[in-house]
Amino acid sequence: MSTIEIPDVVIQRLPLYVRVLAGVLSQGTKVISSKDLGDILQITPAQIRKDLSYFGRFGKQGRGYNVRFLRDELRQILGLDQMWSTCLVGVGRLGEAIINYPGFIPEGFNVLAAFDSDDKSVGRMVGDLRVDSISNLDEIIQSKCIQIGIVAVPASDAQSVIDKLVSSGVTGILNYAPISAQVPNDAFVRNLDPVLSLQSMTFYLTRGNETSIDAI
Amino acid sequence: MSTIEIPDVVIQRLPLYVRVLAGVLSQGTKVISSKDLGDILQITPAQIRKDLSYFGRFGKQGRGYNVRFLRDELRQILGLDQMWSTCLVGVGRLGEAIINYPGFIPEGFNVLAAFDSDDKSVGRMVGDLRVDSISNLDEIIQSKCIQIGIVAVPASDAQSVIDKLVSSGVTGILNYAPISAQVPNDAFVRNLDPVLSLQSMTFYLTRGNETSIDAI
Repeated sequence: MSTIEIPDVVIQRLPLYVRVLAGVLSQGTKVISSKDLGDILQITPAQIRKDLSYFGRFGKQGRGYNVRFLRDELRQILGLDQMWSTCLVGVGRLGEAIINYPGFIPEGFNVLAAFDSDDKSVGRMVGDLRVDSISNLDEIIQSKCIQIGIVAVPASDAQSVIDKLVSSGVTGILNYAPISAQVPNDAFVRNLDPVLSLQSMTFYLTRGNETSIDAI
Repeated sequence: MSTIEIPDVVIQRLPLYVRVLAGVLSQGTKVISSKDLGDILQITPAQIRKDLSYFGRFGKQGRGYNVRFLRDELRQILGLDQMWSTCLVGVGRLGEAIINYPGFIPEGFNVLAAFDSDDKSVGRMVGDLRVDSISNLDEIIQSKCIQIGIVAVPASDAQSVIDKLVSSGVTGILNYAPISAQVPNDAFVRNLDPVLSLQSMTFYLTRGNETSIDAI
């Protein structure tokens, strides 16, 4: 499998497939057609078959997919057959919501440390975590083998925090700050920016039902 | 301009262009080449020219783009030359962070109402807003002409909240809950789901620097 030529938009759909497959499996469905999977995901069956074809053959024409097998294969392709160690930088309201978010651990992501630059925040407990000073970031990232940094600081601080995380050995950044984050070629960023999401939705809202959003 | 054939991934890049153009304009740059714009955005100049070509001609070959004109045109295309009225449903930690987020108003989004189903939450002040009961949702959405609903409720409640918002006349949903939200054809959803973002990033993290993420 050459990963270089797979469009990122395909990679972004795979976790959706995993989630839906896990859902139908929990309802007792063992085999699913690309049409039924497409109906749930609002994606065409042809798109689903094309997406999966990047990763090999998962079903026979007309037979549908074995749900458990496809879920497990996609989980392995995505690297979800392990727990990932993450840290949070920025323990404001958003940071507190992230620490207390119950959805990370069941999906394979553990928030093992939280950092803030504000002396008033350092030392307090949020959920099960004690907030550490950002001056200890490098040491703690290395001692806890943290792989992913979640950035919830103001925009003005975000790039320098990302630089610190990357130089401490973190290779994945989940960035909530509204900046175009820069990382070296051997690191990766995903941005969660509500303003960008809203601003690309208003394109459709101004045009009404003459348009539709392609599923990502 | 036929909007139907424009890939959504192009629409998603336009707000990034607007943000970067506003940034360089504030630094006094009046003309920018697609190469310089691409360097900032980590997108190829060819991709930028192709994206913009969906919307008309914004520059002459070799002359670069007039920064202010391009920013203003893209803002208009995206529907950002007006304020959008939004409401929030779900005033937990995440909801509080959303209400207090300073980034919405300068970008054209006003959170005018906040709803919760928990009687203990109803009536309290968060930021400048008094939390309303979700039973008043329909009435308040109509009286305040709310166009966009921001959903920050648990996954189990999210689809029914989205259904309520849409039946009250909201046509845009910004969904923070980890579900595949369903809306009618004349409504639009954007999802902000940290788990999906993380799970599509670990694909790259397991492969290291043999891969790279295409900029969205």
